[in-house]
Amino acid sequence: MTPEEFRRYGHAVVDWIAEYQQNVERYPVLSQVAPGDIRAALPPEPPEQGEPFEAVLRDVDSIIMPGITHWQHPSFFAYFPGNSSGPAMLGDLLASGLGVQGMLWSTSPAATELETHVLDWLAQLLDLPDRFRSGTAGGGVIQHSASDAVLCALLAALHRVSGGRTERDGVAAGGYTVYTSGQSHSSIEKACRIAGLGADALRKIDVDPTTHAARPEHLRELVAADVAAGLTPTLVVASVGATGTGAIDPVGALADLAHDAGAWIHVDAAWAGVAAVAPEFRWINAGVGSVDSYATNPHKWLLTNFDCDTFWVADRAALVGALSILPEYLRNAASDSGAVIDYRDWQVPLGRRFRALKLWAVLRWYGAEGLRDHIRGHVALAQEFASWVAADERFELVAPHPLALVTFRLTAGNEATLELMNRVNASGALFLTHTVLDGATVLRLAIGAVSTRHEHVAAAWQALRAAAG
Amino acid sequence: MTPEEFRRYGHAVVDWIAEYQQNVERYPVLSQVAPGDIRAALPPEPPEQGEPFEAVLRDVDSIIMPGITHWQHPSFFAYFPGNSSGPAMLGDLLASGLGVQGMLWSTSPAATELETHVLDWLAQLLDLPDRFRSGTAGGGVIQHSASDAVLCALLAALHRVSGGRTERDGVAAGGYTVYTSGQSHSSIEKACRIAGLGADALRKIDVDPTTHAARPEHLRELVAADVAAGLTPTLVVASVGATGTGAIDPVGALADLAHDAGAWIHVDAAWAGVAAVAPEFRWINAGVGSVDSYATNPHKWLLTNFDCDTFWVADRAALVGALSILPEYLRNAASDSGAVIDYRDWQVPLGRRFRALKLWAVLRWYGAEGLRDHIRGHVALAQEFASWVAADERFELVAPHPLALVTFRLTAGNEATLELMNRVNASGALFLTHTVLDGATVLRLAIGAVSTRHEHVAAAWQALRAAAG
Repeated sequence: MTPEEFRRYGHAVVDWIAEYQQNVERYPVLSQVAPGDIRAALPPEPPEQGEPFEAVLRDVDSIIMPGITHWQHPSFFAYFPGNSSGPAMLGDLLASGLGVQGMLWSTSPAATELETHVLDWLAQLLDLPDRFRSGTAGGGVIQHSASDAVLCALLAALHRVSGGRTERDGVAAGGYTVYTSGQSHSSIEKACRIAGLGADALRKIDVDPTTHAARPEHLRELVAADVAAGLTPTLVVASVGATGTGAIDPVGALADLAHDAGAWIHVDAAWAGVAAVAPEFRWINAGVGSVDSYATNPHKWLLTNFDCDTFWVADRAALVGALSILPEYLRNAASDSGAVIDYRDWQVPLGRRFRALKLWAVLRWYGAEGLRDHIRGHVALAQEFASWVAADERFELVAPHPLALVTFRLTAGNEATLELMNRVNASGALFLTHTVLDGATVLRLAIGAVSTRHEHVAAAWQALRAAAG
Repeated sequence: MTPEEFRRYGHAVVDWIAEYQQNVERYPVLSQVAPGDIRAALPPEPPEQGEPFEAVLRDVDSIIMPGITHWQHPSFFAYFPGNSSGPAMLGDLLASGLGVQGMLWSTSPAATELETHVLDWLAQLLDLPDRFRSGTAGGGVIQHSASDAVLCALLAALHRVSGGRTERDGVAAGGYTVYTSGQSHSSIEKACRIAGLGADALRKIDVDPTTHAARPEHLRELVAADVAAGLTPTLVVASVGATGTGAIDPVGALADLAHDAGAWIHVDAAWAGVAAVAPEFRWINAGVGSVDSYATNPHKWLLTNFDCDTFWVADRAALVGALSILPEYLRNAASDSGAVIDYRDWQVPLGRRFRALKLWAVLRWYGAEGLRDHIRGHVALAQEFASWVAADERFELVAPHPLALVTFRLTAGNEATLELMNRVNASGALFLTHTVLDGATVLRLAIGAVSTRHEHVAAAWQALRAAAG
């Protein structure tokens, strides 16, 4: 494709996206296709000759769009949000245009230095502790996802607790154990499996029946039992905004226990962490001053297209120690000098995209003020929704909802609650998901799409009330 | 950013990229900045108020561009190429615009089904075995990188060899061992470390002194010794186009030995594999008919922007067995039916971008013919460059160069060779990298940028000759 063709088709794609943003409400939120429908509409064979780009765009409209579940729809309330925004898309497009691969500082110094810089900026905007800033022994890096972040935290923890022996000897000798609450994300069990500890190495900390937050007393018991059994407590993962109900663990108390046991403590704040751009929500991060690592996802609720998980460590040496390998073909003067960061040593893969550009564009376009408005608007809508739920006797709230996730159910029971969800989701007018909490089926309404306004939340409540009969 | 603003700034960014493509030759290939230069030009504090997008674009020009090493420059010959192309960028921009997260089939059926479909298409274009197609027990998936692919292959191998026990018990009991040649990529050692086996679990297979390909007889010895010691051969990684010199292992012989030992065999064809779009290069994949998994990177040499590693397995059950966890909050009717693929179970992270769109756009815009021309052009240029090297008595070729990587050195020795590289790289006129082979410093000229034409390779040779004195 020549630069002139790129200009022409590029303008067309930009216009297509602008129109999509304007018209996204016309689509059913949840795709209505059946398994195999999309593939049945695609030619079985790849094209022998090249095709005009117009044909691709035509097929996006006719074949792809019916198979899209619209995460950018203002009535998408499922899972957690997956934000998209203009500056993020354009920062990412610039990264595509430059096409650099920032595995080493020397393979594009700006890719590394801008990343270090915007991670410092974001740490400041979230009021995270100084020990995560690049001027210390710590620092920040963009990971693919919070799953990658917790895996990296586990690898760094294994490095530290084993004195670096796991790199050569593996994990066989250690009896390494990991702790998190039953409300925490499945990525923690996945990390235990990937890192060779197995799911049995993971201990589930009991939660408070009201707040669903991890109980430090139970962590203390679990750790004591493991130490008595000759095992090695390695990692504690605290959640700030756990997936099911948004529970917030007592991070400080868990951190103290982790450190007493010689373990690493990581905070998974994938969804909720970014709320700390607004000072009135910074209480969610109480206790993070002494944690070893922290992750939150601007690609969920901070206006930055997937993928962009921001991950900070207080001791970068442990992370790099776990992940660094230097073959001759990657050696270069800058790396040898020790004066630069090579982010390949901070992550699982070698290659890396210039993702800092999109985060930089977001922070600059919105500014701290714009970011706060974005978060505050959603939290206010969620509080109003929760008040409606509380006032309707057919419904009940089931957990604290200090941010923009509201969990609730029908008092009529599990079956009625699940049926209610299926009915409203099938309508295409909104999309929300469920979880199970102490045996109870619970609906989750997560507010956070960039386009969501008061009218959409009000309409969702009307739909839920109507479907509740 | 409103849709109208997105339209305006989007056109500006598209035009910026078109101009960059037209003018990329004006930049020095290798960034000339010193550590800290870029950060020194950035404000220490994030902005309180939002800024106009023009300010971002201005700073891209003045602050970021001096810190770019230009992977899209026609005289970028370092590492392996990192292709970018118009259709890939626009397919990826569409993915940004849709902003869907395809962790489950139901979270956007088109994201899953298009991915399955284009992986089948690409398997056909590369003439990969039928067992990798989605209609069988196998299938394909897009991974972040070849490092992620080999990690997933190792996890699937551990699952299979342990009968699924590693998921619960971890790797402590097994004495699991991994085999690859000393020419293979560092990601294999990294995968051994990440998966908890440790670097000591990796055995390096000796290579043939001329072809630098793994010697099956040595693999046989290594496996026999490990089995005698009570260890469990788990994974063999064969390289098709190893990083140092592009060595091609005898895949069939290694596969037979792997299977005799009960081990999984993975082929890492990250760079070279895509060459098989042209029938005359399909010999590189001799023997892959019986391998368990195969990875190649369209983001290297097949016109698709990072990240896009294509990974196929013959036994998807082993991969899914290793990686699947189903918490209640991800349950849905389609997944429960078993009629769909949920790609979250085929990878380390949970979340995933709609990356199939960019690969689809590339395959359609270029067609099989265009892809073949792309590969053939680079191979022809590399063969001509190698003929020039062979004809100059100051230089010597050091390894077979059937594709588009030529390795060579000065007969004057290591120091002179390294000095030559540093001199031409410092000029900014071209960029190439080195490796060490049996103690000899060797230069690598990897041809593969989309913009590289005959004149650029000829100019590189002139520069090398002139600098050789």
